[in-house]
Amino acid sequence: MRRLIVGVMGPGVGATEGDCLVASELGKLIAEEGWVLLTGGRSAGIMEAASSGASAAGGLTVGILPGSDSTGVAEGVHIAILTGLGEARNNVNVLTSDVIVVCGMSSGTASEVALAIKSRRPLILLGQDQATVSFFKQLDESIRLAADAPEAISIARDVLNASG
Amino acid sequence: MRRLIVGVMGPGVGATEGDCLVASELGKLIAEEGWVLLTGGRSAGIMEAASSGASAAGGLTVGILPGSDSTGVAEGVHIAILTGLGEARNNVNVLTSDVIVVCGMSSGTASEVALAIKSRRPLILLGQDQATVSFFKQLDESIRLAADAPEAISIARDVLNASG
Amino acid sequence: MRRLIVGVMGPGVGATEGDCLVASELGKLIAEEGWVLLTGGRSAGIMEAASSGASAAGGLTVGILPGSDSTGVAEGVHIAILTGLGEARNNVNVLTSDVIVVCGMSSGTASEVALAIKSRRPLILLGQDQATVSFFKQLDESIRLAADAPEAISIARDVLNASG
Amino acid sequence: MRRLIVGVMGPGVGATEGDCLVASELGKLIAEEGWVLLTGGRSAGIMEAASSGASAAGGLTVGILPGSDSTGVAEGVHIAILTGLGEARNNVNVLTSDVIVVCGMSSGTASEVALAIKSRRPLILLGQDQATVSFFKQLDESIRLAADAPEAISIARDVLNASG
Repeated sequence: MRRLIVGVMGPGVGATEGDCLVASELGKLIAEEGWVLLTGGRSAGIMEAASSGASAAGGLTVGILPGSDSTGVAEGVHIAILTGLGEARNNVNVLTSDVIVVCGMSSGTASEVALAIKSRRPLILLGQDQATVSFFKQLDESIRLAADAPEAISIARDVLNASG
Repeated sequence: MRRLIVGVMGPGVGATEGDCLVASELGKLIAEEGWVLLTGGRSAGIMEAASSGASAAGGLTVGILPGSDSTGVAEGVHIAILTGLGEARNNVNVLTSDVIVVCGMSSGTASEVALAIKSRRPLILLGQDQATVSFFKQLDESIRLAADAPEAISIARDVLNASG
Repeated sequence: MRRLIVGVMGPGVGATEGDCLVASELGKLIAEEGWVLLTGGRSAGIMEAASSGASAAGGLTVGILPGSDSTGVAEGVHIAILTGLGEARNNVNVLTSDVIVVCGMSSGTASEVALAIKSRRPLILLGQDQATVSFFKQLDESIRLAADAPEAISIARDVLNASG
Repeated sequence: MRRLIVGVMGPGVGATEGDCLVASELGKLIAEEGWVLLTGGRSAGIMEAASSGASAAGGLTVGILPGSDSTGVAEGVHIAILTGLGEARNNVNVLTSDVIVVCGMSSGTASEVALAIKSRRPLILLGQDQATVSFFKQLDESIRLAADAPEAISIARDVLNASG
């Protein structure tokens, strides 16, 4: 009965337009697979783009927020988890995801990648530069790389089939 | 687009059979109202009974777990939030609920009632004894009391209409 | 090498003058025993009174704060742990204390008492009214009661000797 | 009255012998400056080495642990903060430190570096390889680099003087 949850992690304010387009497509494809989308839930950047993409495609979306009230929750979020934990909530995002797709990069996103490695959650780095890939591959050889949203979804499907 | 979330809080292992029946009915009624049910998510006591009642009635259920993996998640939980926070997750349960119904009592449940008062979340005490009511009414005069599940749902409806 | 830590829990803004005098005496006596004082660390009520009492007597004080910066830390706090967790930090206060003395009552304090029962930390209720004692005794028969600060310290000494 | 706190962050089990020697020297120098040493508190790797170095030199040490009991606390830790938060405690380590020295690298350590950038805590990377420096410098140009323990302490002194 438990639904599969795919986390999309990426920057808020500093996200590029290109990364937001990819995040929106990720949201749409996650919804079409019947998976639940999880993000950091704020109305900014990758969180907002992925949530809007998924909800527009009829998917179910969860946002795990740093704050303790509903201010600044992204429009596309159906289930808002208000943690009041600040950035400590990043570890909740990671633990709750059956697989994680990383789109764009920021300090908050980097903390989620590192925490995902620590807790052995399957990770897919989408469209990352060489410095980012090199650094995280040193920490975990098993990280997967994807060039675009469809490839990330294809890898996620393989990961979920293998673990299920 | 954000869904209303009603938390049902109560004991795990120590829950009485009577309280579990009430929790199951609460879950069913919450589902029929179209609200999302939130519990502590473990496969025990009130959490399990409410989640099963809601999911059997076609509702959507969220469980906010203390652990970091899916061991011990109640069967009726659709969305399992794995916090890894231990009992600190009780504050997440409380903050995330638009209104809270308390069914049965334990130390964990008492912490959730107290945290709900602290963060000003609307609280409905269902079928509590006089010592419990007296203590918490000293901390917050505005706590509501209900004698059974339908009355709790009726009060929750009023609270949600007033705040919405 | 690890130091014994005694937590003093009680209200912030709503603390009575009488309770603050008791908290200050508790802090002084804790320092004289060579124990570390732990409080919620904010510059208000019991936290401030106990910390000032302990530091004036030459003791070492730890404050575990809800916020993420040093605004509002009590003057008497030597070691400020900035959690950024909001009220979820109450569970950290409880887990870190080898024994807990409760002075005054509020919703935050009640959550700490309940969490202490949940995690089996030794609890001493100081000068509490009958409704409070009755409620918590239902949850845990083993809670100790004290009438004043010297009696609380005497009980704490027995508890620490027994567990050490 | 509040004491300055310097965090030393680095791997547990996977720490190299060389990094542990540096961590021990860092602990000793931090103690000699009169600062409080903060680590993740576990009896492994950098946490243990730094804590032992500081306490042997007469310094005061704080450990912020992931667990909820005193199992596995490093010998050199005077004040053990038992969070029960798992890896979410990494954000508490970071927020509580007035300045952070990073010695060795692991997924947990990388999460602390990223969280420190996010919350604008001053960071000193000690003896890191080029891939690590390149990655984190992309996220924050202001990160400082040190080649050995005395240089890290010298930079920390400058940072603390500037912010104090």
